[in-house]
Amino acid sequence: MATSISSSSSSSSSFLSTLPSPSQTLKPQPFLSLRTLPRRGPSDRRRRLLSAGPVAVRAAVAIEKETPEEERPETFLRAADPAAATSVRARFERMIREAQDEVCAALEAADGGAAFKEDVWSRPGGGGGISRVLQDGAVWEKAGVNVSVVYGMMPPEAYRAAKGEPGAADPSAKAGPVPFFAAGISSVLHPKNPFAPTLHFNYRYFETDAPADAPGAPRQWWFGGGTDLTPAYVIEEDVKHFHSVQKQTCDKFDPSFYPRFKKWCDDYFYIKHRGERRGLGGIFFDDVNDYDQEMLLGFATECAKSVIPAYLPIIQRRKDTPFTEQHKAWQQLRRGRYVEFNLVYDRGTTFGLKTGGRIESILVSLPLTARWEYDHQPEVGSEEWKLLDACINPKEWI
Amino acid sequence: MATSISSSSSSSSSFLSTLPSPSQTLKPQPFLSLRTLPRRGPSDRRRRLLSAGPVAVRAAVAIEKETPEEERPETFLRAADPAAATSVRARFERMIREAQDEVCAALEAADGGAAFKEDVWSRPGGGGGISRVLQDGAVWEKAGVNVSVVYGMMPPEAYRAAKGEPGAADPSAKAGPVPFFAAGISSVLHPKNPFAPTLHFNYRYFETDAPADAPGAPRQWWFGGGTDLTPAYVIEEDVKHFHSVQKQTCDKFDPSFYPRFKKWCDDYFYIKHRGERRGLGGIFFDDVNDYDQEMLLGFATECAKSVIPAYLPIIQRRKDTPFTEQHKAWQQLRRGRYVEFNLVYDRGTTFGLKTGGRIESILVSLPLTARWEYDHQPEVGSEEWKLLDACINPKEWI
Repeated sequence: MATSISSSSSSSSSFLSTLPSPSQTLKPQPFLSLRTLPRRGPSDRRRRLLSAGPVAVRAAVAIEKETPEEERPETFLRAADPAAATSVRARFERMIREAQDEVCAALEAADGGAAFKEDVWSRPGGGGGISRVLQDGAVWEKAGVNVSVVYGMMPPEAYRAAKGEPGAADPSAKAGPVPFFAAGISSVLHPKNPFAPTLHFNYRYFETDAPADAPGAPRQWWFGGGTDLTPAYVIEEDVKHFHSVQKQTCDKFDPSFYPRFKKWCDDYFYIKHRGERRGLGGIFFDDVNDYDQEMLLGFATECAKSVIPAYLPIIQRRKDTPFTEQHKAWQQLRRGRYVEFNLVYDRGTTFGLKTGGRIESILVSLPLTARWEYDHQPEVGSEEWKLLDACINPKEWI
Repeated sequence: MATSISSSSSSSSSFLSTLPSPSQTLKPQPFLSLRTLPRRGPSDRRRRLLSAGPVAVRAAVAIEKETPEEERPETFLRAADPAAATSVRARFERMIREAQDEVCAALEAADGGAAFKEDVWSRPGGGGGISRVLQDGAVWEKAGVNVSVVYGMMPPEAYRAAKGEPGAADPSAKAGPVPFFAAGISSVLHPKNPFAPTLHFNYRYFETDAPADAPGAPRQWWFGGGTDLTPAYVIEEDVKHFHSVQKQTCDKFDPSFYPRFKKWCDDYFYIKHRGERRGLGGIFFDDVNDYDQEMLLGFATECAKSVIPAYLPIIQRRKDTPFTEQHKAWQQLRRGRYVEFNLVYDRGTTFGLKTGGRIESILVSLPLTARWEYDHQPEVGSEEWKLLDACINPKEWI
């Protein structure tokens, strides 16, 4: 099929899962309706289609609408942001943008065929992002690598919960909404070959300003993220390599990180209605602020840098492995599980769908194709059964 | 791929959307753990896989677990059910089982190749169901037709809300849980040819017993259901035929039904994050009890009987229409939207996933295959654009 990819605006809300609870809705921001937005090109078609009504319904719960940009700005930080150049905000933004460049360059080189298509966007009140998608390449069926920077307002309960205050859940403790800053890189890579695994990684930094009614109160900040592997077949050499790189990266910072974040990953990517995980894990952490801020910035940086050495050697080994229709169909069934996890459980995705983030950026994590067969049961002892077993009973790989 | 369909137990929770709110959880029923259940055949494999832990997590929130049966019983009603043979419960069960037989026979004849596979199951405390699935036929890619009968307990607030009592939402108004009975037929039919539309229909009847603390209080009952069409291309002749049959059926009972239930359908099958409906609608109604009970039983019966005359003539015309890879890819993208609606919004599906109903029966509604492309935009004026336009801006077809 002729893929008609437009140069429309885009964003990624998926790292917003740094908010303490996905069920807490952000205070709606001022927004522009689609009708007043300067949109260009193919998006105008969509805009006309949408003009009859549903837009208003969506916009009422939407975060501020994004505007497409022709060029990447040097920074998405507000010009008025204090100590912009040396702040953790600024250094985190530089880190994720460098990581995006490095990962995309490495993936394009490994693919040898397709190139990433880039969409740049900003928001009138500050922030913005860069979405890059490679579709129908030689190696990858669909690969998205997004960075974004968001300024918003969070409910005061969320701020107090983050500070660990006792009255955090007490709605009677009145306070104003708290301004926040969030930045993140988010990526899902779905290869074509059923022996080449899907990879997801996401690193994010979150910071609040002082509440409006308590100007002297301390800022809160935390980090979150992780890297995890979702193969359709268990190739021990590959899974061990992947987990070893995660452990090496973790061990540079704290020996407790790998075991804790490995288990956190197994717990998070759990498809409850199936009783199985979507894949073979990796590391995952969220709301982490109980270490030195510089140390955690360094840790997130190292994690992002370890994506390519953890993943590309596996792809180089498996991208040309011969396979049958049966192998492909099993991969497609596992892609179906990926869709179930992302649409039903993933905090970033479900939060993004509720708050009206840009849908195409949020759902770029979905595979190009997926499959659901009624009551499919792999034969006991088959390679498909081994993968399912490892998803149901998480293993220690190293 | 060799499809390994097992003869395991199965159920359908999808008609449980008759409950006033999907976010209200039923009081957990007594349940058997998978380990103590008499399970046979290929399911034993799965049981061994599951034995390590996740089962306990699921079972803790599950409705009573089902047991596979070798034969269809004459009725799934409890033997002690009052006035069993002549009650609305019994007549509704007979109606949906006859409808299942008729629909499956007509679909098999039209497919000319594949046969439905049947799973029968019961629950120890009463109730049960029959699931039938046809997969990879000549005409249909995946077709599921399920009936089920459920006895359960509902929270008292839901009972009071159904009765329209003023204090319905007041949690301080203490009362015991209310026993309920629910029966329904639920079906999704996904054809192979991209010009042959997907059909969904579902008719259900819901009844409460008197609350335990108020034995003289009246029983409550209500009906729900609908039939809706999801084509990948707008063929006006087909859509008009489909809606005309719905209107004729409605008009036999009340001239207000078609316009009301047509709009209800457009409102219900709305994919909010896309600003579009999943298809071209039909009729949908829920919690309806403000007409004569016999009249509504007759209406649901007529609706179920109208499924085949509304749908099969369209299939006969379109099942062999020549198509290109582009047509197929567009159908697959629309199937992706179907998955998004069912996993994110559908009351029956999301309720079933939360309460631990049998997953394979709940998710049989998902298509065999689906597709997601980044930011796909059909060309203005194309046939794909016309379908999208009709999903965004619902039309009056007759």
